[in-house]
Amino acid sequence: MPLIFLDPYPRNEAMVFTDDTREALESLGDLVVHFGSRAPDALVEDILPRVDVIVGQTAMPRERIDRAPNLKAILNVKANWEPNIDYAHAQGRGIYVLSSAPVMGMAVAEMALGHAIGLGRGITAGDRAFRAGTERYSIDGNGRAYSLHGAEVGLIGFGNLARDLVPLLAPFRARISVYDPWLSPEYLSRFGVAAAPLDEVLEKSRFLFILAGATSENEGFLDRAKLQQITPDASVILISRAEVVDFDAFVELADSGHFRAAIDVYPEEPAPADVPVRTSRNTVLTSHLAGGIHDSYRRMREWMVDDIRQVLAGHPPLMMQRAEPRQALLGRSR
Amino acid sequence: MPLIFLDPYPRNEAMVFTDDTREALESLGDLVVHFGSRAPDALVEDILPRVDVIVGQTAMPRERIDRAPNLKAILNVKANWEPNIDYAHAQGRGIYVLSSAPVMGMAVAEMALGHAIGLGRGITAGDRAFRAGTERYSIDGNGRAYSLHGAEVGLIGFGNLARDLVPLLAPFRARISVYDPWLSPEYLSRFGVAAAPLDEVLEKSRFLFILAGATSENEGFLDRAKLQQITPDASVILISRAEVVDFDAFVELADSGHFRAAIDVYPEEPAPADVPVRTSRNTVLTSHLAGGIHDSYRRMREWMVDDIRQVLAGHPPLMMQRAEPRQALLGRSR
Amino acid sequence: MPLIFLDPYPRNEAMVFTDDTREALESLGDLVVHFGSRAPDALVEDILPRVDVIVGQTAMPRERIDRAPNLKAILNVKANWEPNIDYAHAQGRGIYVLSSAPVMGMAVAEMALGHAIGLGRGITAGDRAFRAGTERYSIDGNGRAYSLHGAEVGLIGFGNLARDLVPLLAPFRARISVYDPWLSPEYLSRFGVAAAPLDEVLEKSRFLFILAGATSENEGFLDRAKLQQITPDASVILISRAEVVDFDAFVELADSGHFRAAIDVYPEEPAPADVPVRTSRNTVLTSHLAGGIHDSYRRMREWMVDDIRQVLAGHPPLMMQRAEPRQALLGRSR
Amino acid sequence: MPLIFLDPYPRNEAMVFTDDTREALESLGDLVVHFGSRAPDALVEDILPRVDVIVGQTAMPRERIDRAPNLKAILNVKANWEPNIDYAHAQGRGIYVLSSAPVMGMAVAEMALGHAIGLGRGITAGDRAFRAGTERYSIDGNGRAYSLHGAEVGLIGFGNLARDLVPLLAPFRARISVYDPWLSPEYLSRFGVAAAPLDEVLEKSRFLFILAGATSENEGFLDRAKLQQITPDASVILISRAEVVDFDAFVELADSGHFRAAIDVYPEEPAPADVPVRTSRNTVLTSHLAGGIHDSYRRMREWMVDDIRQVLAGHPPLMMQRAEPRQALLGRSR
Repeated sequence: MPLIFLDPYPRNEAMVFTDDTREALESLGDLVVHFGSRAPDALVEDILPRVDVIVGQTAMPRERIDRAPNLKAILNVKANWEPNIDYAHAQGRGIYVLSSAPVMGMAVAEMALGHAIGLGRGITAGDRAFRAGTERYSIDGNGRAYSLHGAEVGLIGFGNLARDLVPLLAPFRARISVYDPWLSPEYLSRFGVAAAPLDEVLEKSRFLFILAGATSENEGFLDRAKLQQITPDASVILISRAEVVDFDAFVELADSGHFRAAIDVYPEEPAPADVPVRTSRNTVLTSHLAGGIHDSYRRMREWMVDDIRQVLAGHPPLMMQRAEPRQALLGRSR
Repeated sequence: MPLIFLDPYPRNEAMVFTDDTREALESLGDLVVHFGSRAPDALVEDILPRVDVIVGQTAMPRERIDRAPNLKAILNVKANWEPNIDYAHAQGRGIYVLSSAPVMGMAVAEMALGHAIGLGRGITAGDRAFRAGTERYSIDGNGRAYSLHGAEVGLIGFGNLARDLVPLLAPFRARISVYDPWLSPEYLSRFGVAAAPLDEVLEKSRFLFILAGATSENEGFLDRAKLQQITPDASVILISRAEVVDFDAFVELADSGHFRAAIDVYPEEPAPADVPVRTSRNTVLTSHLAGGIHDSYRRMREWMVDDIRQVLAGHPPLMMQRAEPRQALLGRSR
Repeated sequence: MPLIFLDPYPRNEAMVFTDDTREALESLGDLVVHFGSRAPDALVEDILPRVDVIVGQTAMPRERIDRAPNLKAILNVKANWEPNIDYAHAQGRGIYVLSSAPVMGMAVAEMALGHAIGLGRGITAGDRAFRAGTERYSIDGNGRAYSLHGAEVGLIGFGNLARDLVPLLAPFRARISVYDPWLSPEYLSRFGVAAAPLDEVLEKSRFLFILAGATSENEGFLDRAKLQQITPDASVILISRAEVVDFDAFVELADSGHFRAAIDVYPEEPAPADVPVRTSRNTVLTSHLAGGIHDSYRRMREWMVDDIRQVLAGHPPLMMQRAEPRQALLGRSR
Repeated sequence: MPLIFLDPYPRNEAMVFTDDTREALESLGDLVVHFGSRAPDALVEDILPRVDVIVGQTAMPRERIDRAPNLKAILNVKANWEPNIDYAHAQGRGIYVLSSAPVMGMAVAEMALGHAIGLGRGITAGDRAFRAGTERYSIDGNGRAYSLHGAEVGLIGFGNLARDLVPLLAPFRARISVYDPWLSPEYLSRFGVAAAPLDEVLEKSRFLFILAGATSENEGFLDRAKLQQITPDASVILISRAEVVDFDAFVELADSGHFRAAIDVYPEEPAPADVPVRTSRNTVLTSHLAGGIHDSYRRMREWMVDDIRQVLAGHPPLMMQRAEPRQALLGRSR
């Protein structure tokens, strides 16, 4: 029987090892399981000679890979890569290194769309007004409302989140501009979106989605000056990583009425009790709720089982994302 | 020159007679315009012998139609029909009787989707919690969150609103059941939705959209007993007409936690200061904001001009909706 | 029991009265049925006082309508309207006058697409070459091949056929221009197509679909001079009515290599043995096969039953097309 | 300046090195170009120390890779992989090994759809009958016609071709079953298709697309017994590789009327003058015309330039397909 090693911390059993998942995995191989912390070195050393599949971000430098002759796949079930794997060496051995990060995309895209409509149409603000008894009706209450239908939409970053968001925007026939310095216009056109410089995306988008992952190179690249370029009264959805913006400037600009914003990610989580964002105006605040819903974890488990089954049958894995060795090293954990 | 008569009360000039609309209409004919009230009888009598097109819900009984030999079209720019037109007689004369009601559909559908995602994912509730300092993060805050992706969706009523909502739901690959007693399963299948009995729609839908228009026959058909059939913790969006539900029961059931609800329409608007809905829990309240945004009125003006141009050129009108004489008489004004 | 009168000549029993259709109709009312010719006057006179629904193009002038107090709907199951019905008077009575013409649209659209790909990619021509032993392989055989992907497409006429064709073209991301003098640019934009003058459509389309119905006004409007404007080597699909082109010129231009053509309709059917089209080059010939497949007639029967059920239940019919009184009188039979 | 080495034989200059491509590549680096044969060893040895990008299937065993310290990408512009590259070692070095094979998919999918409609609706057969003077009109000529709309469709093999075909089938709302032993049901469901055993796909499909690539393991897996399972009168499109079927049996079964077939690939190309397929009935024959149209080569050049630009900028390539080391070794050349 093949050996499957689960070392998925910080994921817990409810996330990646429900009863049906355990049952499915047991039908595929022998299991060695460690939860609650990264597996101790002794345990890792013990399984290396026999392991076929590792689930988790177990440290796998070159010399450990060399001592795992049967290893066929490493499935990272966190949201980001760590530098503790020798990605290139694993690939050179024909070992699949996979990430479950895209499982979160559908949920984040849905949340981003909900925030966008909510900002444009004033849903949370309307509710606050209604409860305060200051609501106005119909066109009188819609003075600042605008719609996604046919709107100018900007996406900053075009990774998994964006790819799951674009189909949700399609029926609105929005015109979508994308800033992503790693991607070519030709590639972006496959998705029906247009590459554009950052300045243009900031200045013309009525709806602006900040979807860029955090890397070692892009911290705070949306600084105060850039944020000031955002078109007045735009709806800005900050939903990937707080690190990519100057967060203080972002909140101040929203609070002062330069734009409206939905914020799901924060420089520090939980947010301290007294940070200005808590009392900001023109914002809708959710507490890192975009990706981690139960459906996402169910999808993670399904993909994980499916890819392990493929790999153990000698076929390529299909569901999770392949590591891009160079990019994997740029990703920042949090 | 053809004569175009505008008598669009309760629509005002900002809604239907902006400068560009006036200019477009003046290029098509002579204009007689009355705003601020229904046109006085004397004015109507005066234009009858010469009028080609009427915009508004001017009373047009049979005998008036008979005295308008050039009349080619009546364009109702309200949301509903009134019984003050002899619809069949007009049709017998080959006079197009048209309604702009569908212009609101896209905006209502967008708002309905925004409310649905907002309820399922807890956006407004999350914002309230964040501002109260009681927010919880990621999976800890998502205990009750659920997604539209692949969800069971129920639509009650399948008119203009529903037809504009279905395309927005398509990328979520939701399974959509529809209750509409006027429509056949065969017809509904054209839209990729399944006809279902009311009980089934209530009992199985995770997201329930109440989209039925109010008629003289369906007041309160969603009574307390029916509302109690709604699946526990469903997200219910009440967005067409408050009259179709037992509103007090609806609010009580939401408030008590039976389901979560977004409410955009009320039995009395503005809602009195002390009605229970204002302080209800598990609800998101907007004040009849769903349809009447500026985009909807722009669309109304564009459709109006386009159809008048068609009719005066001897072609059929294309954009507005034809009156269905029997149904027109069933519709209820508000 | 309501009375349903079937007088559907030239449709025969296999087309509109299969066993399951008979059974469905018998469950809805009493049937009086006449096949093989138009019903004799005596039979019509006999049923008038009692008839609820007429299926067929029975002559219904004003005075007959007046003697049919229960009449609720007339379902024309031919492809075109005749002037033997007083359309406006029927509408004035609230009688639905319906046409099954759109049932053919899906089959015609499919055939039009098959012809377009076949012409552009040289399928029938390639088969002829292969059987003659003159085939050339891969890029050597593809010297004149071109693709629908991203192509300039022109539609002449935008009725039922075009509306069923546009979705089939959508995945090719073709740019579609439409010439239809009865329709406005605003209306056409709803379908994602662009209105254009006839000259422009002829001159820029790589694929040109002739989809216009024949009216008393448009015979031969695509005359030799217009046909000469077609872009060289375009693929032209003539599939609605031969009358709208100068057929001799059309065949000569294809034969001489000006464009390639697929032809499904002919001025005289069956085509005489010696007409030039039979030996023309650069053409693919099918014998009025586009619409009348078994699936189309099945759909006709289903729509017919569904609409009769609706009408007898007091609801509006949904599946068949409403008569447009003025346009109905312009349509030409064949 | 980076060094780009072009050794793309059997591709010629018209395919991969048009003027605009040359210009684009010259703006990216120094070019060393060899056409007309595989580059001689001396030339390869000469460029190894300096080369950044190789376009072509130059033999690159481990020891050559080790002598190419700057090598960042190998772009195979043939349709298949060869075993003359050490794929794993290249990956271990972080060298991208890419294939342009998917550029052909759109053209093949279009041709496959054209063939399917042509077979189902009898286009080429109808043309033959018309020219023979034996055509029959409308429903009389449509006795055996059937439609893709709502049909049962089977795909054998789900690689690039299938992925480009599925969107073209989508508007027909066909039910698509797929047999591909390398892919999981979960993965296939992402595309809206259903995994099924081979027997089921053969027995229930009205339209059957043979899209499997040839590997060292699947030669002739659709043998006579399997082909006899095909549902009677199905339309079968053989368009990937002739090797996957027992070709003689395939032609005999079509010729005898068991099914209708479109054939684009042959065991020997050009097909010898006297092979039975040339005179077969119930077949439509094209001479390997499906993929190699000018648009496909234009796309190949665009992808190639785009990916070279990405790689030289330090970004991942986006357009071409990554080698799957294990699968690359299974592919069969022709």
